Amino acid sequence: MEGECMRREEGQVEIGVVTSEAVHRVAEPPPQSTVDKVKVRMKETFFPDDPFRRFKGQPLKRKWVLAAQYLFPVLDWAPSYSFSLFKSDLVAGLTGISYAKLASLPPAVGLYTSFVPPLVYSVLGSSRDVAVGPVSIASLVMGSMLRQAANPNADPYLFLQLALTATFFAGLFQASLGILRLGFIIDFLSKATLVGFMAGSAIIVSLQQLRNLLGIVHFTKKMGVVPVMSSVFHNTNEWSWETAAMGICFLAFLLLARHAGMRRPKLSWISVGAPLASVVVSTLVVFLLKAQNHGISTIGKLRCGLNRPSWDKLLFDGTHLSTTMKTGLVTGIISLAEGIASGRTFASLRSYKVDGNKEMMAIGLMNIVGSCTSCYVSTGAFSRSAVNHNAGCKTAMSNVVMATTVMLTLLLLMPLFAYTPNVVLAAIIIAAVVGLVDVPAACNIWKLDKVDFLVCLSSFLGVVFVSVQQGLAIAIGLSTFRILLQITRPKMIALGNIPGTSIYRDMHQYKEAKGVPGFLILAIEAPINFSNTTYLNERHVAVITRWIENETTMEDKEASLRFLILDLSAVPTVDTSGITFLNELKKSTEKDGLELIFVNPMGEVMEKLQRANKIQEFLGVGSLYLTVGEAVISLSPFIKESA
Amino acid sequence: MEGECMRREEGQVEIGVVTSEAVHRVAEPPPQSTVDKVKVRMKETFFPDDPFRRFKGQPLKRKWVLAAQYLFPVLDWAPSYSFSLFKSDLVAGLTGISYAKLASLPPAVGLYTSFVPPLVYSVLGSSRDVAVGPVSIASLVMGSMLRQAANPNADPYLFLQLALTATFFAGLFQASLGILRLGFIIDFLSKATLVGFMAGSAIIVSLQQLRNLLGIVHFTKKMGVVPVMSSVFHNTNEWSWETAAMGICFLAFLLLARHAGMRRPKLSWISVGAPLASVVVSTLVVFLLKAQNHGISTIGKLRCGLNRPSWDKLLFDGTHLSTTMKTGLVTGIISLAEGIASGRTFASLRSYKVDGNKEMMAIGLMNIVGSCTSCYVSTGAFSRSAVNHNAGCKTAMSNVVMATTVMLTLLLLMPLFAYTPNVVLAAIIIAAVVGLVDVPAACNIWKLDKVDFLVCLSSFLGVVFVSVQQGLAIAIGLSTFRILLQITRPKMIALGNIPGTSIYRDMHQYKEAKGVPGFLILAIEAPINFSNTTYLNERHVAVITRWIENETTMEDKEASLRFLILDLSAVPTVDTSGITFLNELKKSTEKDGLELIFVNPMGEVMEKLQRANKIQEFLGVGSLYLTVGEAVISLSPFIKESA
Repeated sequence: MEGECMRREEGQVEIGVVTSEAVHRVAEPPPQSTVDKVKVRMKETFFPDDPFRRFKGQPLKRKWVLAAQYLFPVLDWAPSYSFSLFKSDLVAGLTGISYAKLASLPPAVGLYTSFVPPLVYSVLGSSRDVAVGPVSIASLVMGSMLRQAANPNADPYLFLQLALTATFFAGLFQASLGILRLGFIIDFLSKATLVGFMAGSAIIVSLQQLRNLLGIVHFTKKMGVVPVMSSVFHNTNEWSWETAAMGICFLAFLLLARHAGMRRPKLSWISVGAPLASVVVSTLVVFLLKAQNHGISTIGKLRCGLNRPSWDKLLFDGTHLSTTMKTGLVTGIISLAEGIASGRTFASLRSYKVDGNKEMMAIGLMNIVGSCTSCYVSTGAFSRSAVNHNAGCKTAMSNVVMATTVMLTLLLLMPLFAYTPNVVLAAIIIAAVVGLVDVPAACNIWKLDKVDFLVCLSSFLGVVFVSVQQGLAIAIGLSTFRILLQITRPKMIALGNIPGTSIYRDMHQYKEAKGVPGFLILAIEAPINFSNTTYLNERHVAVITRWIENETTMEDKEASLRFLILDLSAVPTVDTSGITFLNELKKSTEKDGLELIFVNPMGEVMEKLQRANKIQEFLGVGSLYLTVGEAVISLSPFIKESA
Repeated sequence: MEGECMRREEGQVEIGVVTSEAVHRVAEPPPQSTVDKVKVRMKETFFPDDPFRRFKGQPLKRKWVLAAQYLFPVLDWAPSYSFSLFKSDLVAGLTGISYAKLASLPPAVGLYTSFVPPLVYSVLGSSRDVAVGPVSIASLVMGSMLRQAANPNADPYLFLQLALTATFFAGLFQASLGILRLGFIIDFLSKATLVGFMAGSAIIVSLQQLRNLLGIVHFTKKMGVVPVMSSVFHNTNEWSWETAAMGICFLAFLLLARHAGMRRPKLSWISVGAPLASVVVSTLVVFLLKAQNHGISTIGKLRCGLNRPSWDKLLFDGTHLSTTMKTGLVTGIISLAEGIASGRTFASLRSYKVDGNKEMMAIGLMNIVGSCTSCYVSTGAFSRSAVNHNAGCKTAMSNVVMATTVMLTLLLLMPLFAYTPNVVLAAIIIAAVVGLVDVPAACNIWKLDKVDFLVCLSSFLGVVFVSVQQGLAIAIGLSTFRILLQITRPKMIALGNIPGTSIYRDMHQYKEAKGVPGFLILAIEAPINFSNTTYLNERHVAVITRWIENETTMEDKEASLRFLILDLSAVPTVDTSGITFLNELKKSTEKDGLELIFVNPMGEVMEKLQRANKIQEFLGVGSLYLTVGEAVISLSPFIKESA
């Protein structure tokens, strides 16, 4: 132990000198210029994996091929393409009709949106399982947000213009996020937020379908549960029992088929085929019984023909610009979240990787192109991708197949839909969105983390009772506030020695851990920065005071506190306020007759401590140790001396 | 080593069984109900120190005395009060006149604001050094924000009403922050933000004074550097050389006096006395030379009399409500920041504590009372508090002394100011705010932390070139974004063994640290939550891939990777997304033929891992260790077996 005493008495400025085998030096990370640091940091922030790694060491020609494959994933999978069976893509197009209605748009727009975007995505998208088209939640949000600016019944043309413009902005926003590699913005939609949001949206969407399910003619334009339910029960005279009976029959059939498909994977063809069967049967029933004369509303006559160009319909004048941009932003984020989540889910099932940023560019471009070809906002649809996945589609070609089916429908089958009842589409949508209410997931969240459950609940209640966009905003705000609160109010933990070892751990967690007389060992579990230095300042005083009080009431009165050891192992960063805090802590503990010891500062923290030490010297000899154990062993002789 | 092998082969579900002396159990923190957790968490969040601790074990009578002292700090210090010398409080009142002009308010309001608020603060405030009154920056912000709603020249009465109402809202907001214990909101004004903000504001305030210094009559109403400078140089014909000469003389005198006072603490009486001397001399000069006829503008006639009640002037009608509330919010936060910062600075110099939340209530109530007695927003002024501190004031009685001086001025001396030239007040203000430009602090920030410097710079440039409130908003946004980015893109560090020890540290920081064949040891340096799980997922795959590539290029090809050790020592919290990440990581590493080992999860993390394990078992036997060293020692035999 003499070695240590000497070291401390030499009065050198050198930090953490190694003079004994038991004590190890705290190293500084190798010097790096600010420019290099910024480069590395930027790369790590924007590119979790190095995108150029696959190019390394390849011949030039191969490099070109790889670059082309990177930009157009179609080249990646097309050579290995094998045809899969034709599926019920007709139903996808038909539910698109209902989704368009959810957004208060003409039915044909739903079909158009199931045609062009899948083609664009099949060229640009990197996921092989995602099925692209209009989706319920984004349709709902777009409809409700645009209705604040224009009345779809009074001025349908203006409304369509606004919807196309909002789609354009959504695409622009999505593509920019991808190009600027800011994809992490959608990470702020946490799982808890999404579970609540999906469940709430499913309820709102289902309630909207009550209109068609009951055949009500006059219906509220609002989205909330309260206005919809009051609208349903104030118009009981408009209920059409024929429609309701038909709707309930088909809904029951679809739910049973869905249940059967989920219970026995072998029967999944039933749940996939049921919607198409329902459409065919109901259309035939209406046609044969002339049921449209008995109060059952049908889709009505649709004109044959493919998408027409619509870039001349985009409106960029001042009066509606803020509405369309806001709508584009919100629907853009919501549809991105759904698209990327479905892409990632199925990619992880098949062990391949989806690049979030590329995916964003693909979805964004698809929407920009869509807005110029009479399509409204579309994205990768979770429920339809699951159908594709179960049916065994292995490449993005499924989107081409689907687009072809929809194209044939647009060209040839449009007159047939004149007799398809709206009620059966309503039943198909309800049966589809029911799956979005994930009660077991909510239960797990409750069991794991009460705050997350609160986020989930507030997102659900916000969507159901306030509005879709505000429910989302509340949930995101809450989750972000929680992160900030954890940083702003970090835990300061007292460590104790686990007997028989040199390990020091939280005394609250490890009951066997014992305090060392003369030492107070504290660990801070957060970056030390401007947002928490004030708190830490007040807190450490309180902790030290309490510790001394407790200690002096114990038997070991003579071994008074000599050293305050601050374990920085869990402090990833400090900023200037943090450095000032550590500097002032050193001074104020010295005033109280204590010596402050820092243990295991990490790379960045160590670097800043050294820099601060150059400006204003505050790291004395031996005030840095590599582990708490070494610090306690080295400093124990001084306790006994003073005692 | 046989003990370990047995343990791993027994197939028990028990976690981290202790069968060998070398291996220690990872403990769970003692169980605690959610309600208890919320209680403890709330207490720690809102009360860094237990406010009721001082009441413990005291007799009832003493408790009442302590409670009264807690609510009215005047009772705390009044008994130990000793009179300090009468000081230059007259100057404080007079600069108040200039500050009122900065806010486009009548000069007398500045004097009123130096009378009532100090009295209120002396009863409620907990700081003994802070001098209360109007301050430059808050005046400037209030003036510029209210001028968007009303023209102070065309409708001075409406403008005064708005200012009083904004003051009322500022007080209400400040008091609510204190009562709700949300004081940490002002912590988000980091030191870097404040350094830039203060410097920028000093420049804006000084430029505004150019009007009086040069005697310009027609001056811009804007705040930015560009409009002010163009206003100065477009009205060169209005420059009055008499005024300019007088201003420059007095400014030079004041700056010299300030310099002398700072260089030699013994001469500090010069810098304290200089402003009063300037006022007296300049007033005499103007009176004797009848200089007001030579283009030197003076304060002019002021009516004698104390503050009149003004609660009838508060305006709560709809048209101006949003402006006054917004102005109240911004000036409230800015003045709180200055008040609390000055309180804390001088408290730490004298080693006593200022309770931020109590201080907020005091400042808030002071402004509410002020708004009802013809005062506009006031707070603890840093520069004046420094004067008090240097003059040796030891109790808050200095505020009473100052209020008395101002009262005598209001009652008796008002006619004398008829001859006080505005230019000398401008010189006093410029000399005062020059001290706010803290270049050495900015240099230190640059040396310590480049991002903080960016925050500082953007706050400075924003204030100077855009506007005071937006400059502040940009800086706060940047600092908050930085915190979120650190969480969203956490570092994943590869650890290595320091030869001859069982210590594992960052291989980048410690060059001597060596990887252990067959093990990849990673540490995550942030809470694992929804905002970073996507990133971590992509990142860990990249890190593992790169590691395997590097390893196989090394000589030790046969010792292929068997174990992935994840050191959770620096992970303070996880949420449900984090748990899902760890769960999926376990599965995906198993697919790759790796075994995932968790090391040293902290209390909360351990608790959630256990809870998740109950729902869906994923922590196998021996997948938890207390230290990396123990994990490596225990698992090494398996590497050799497989090799």
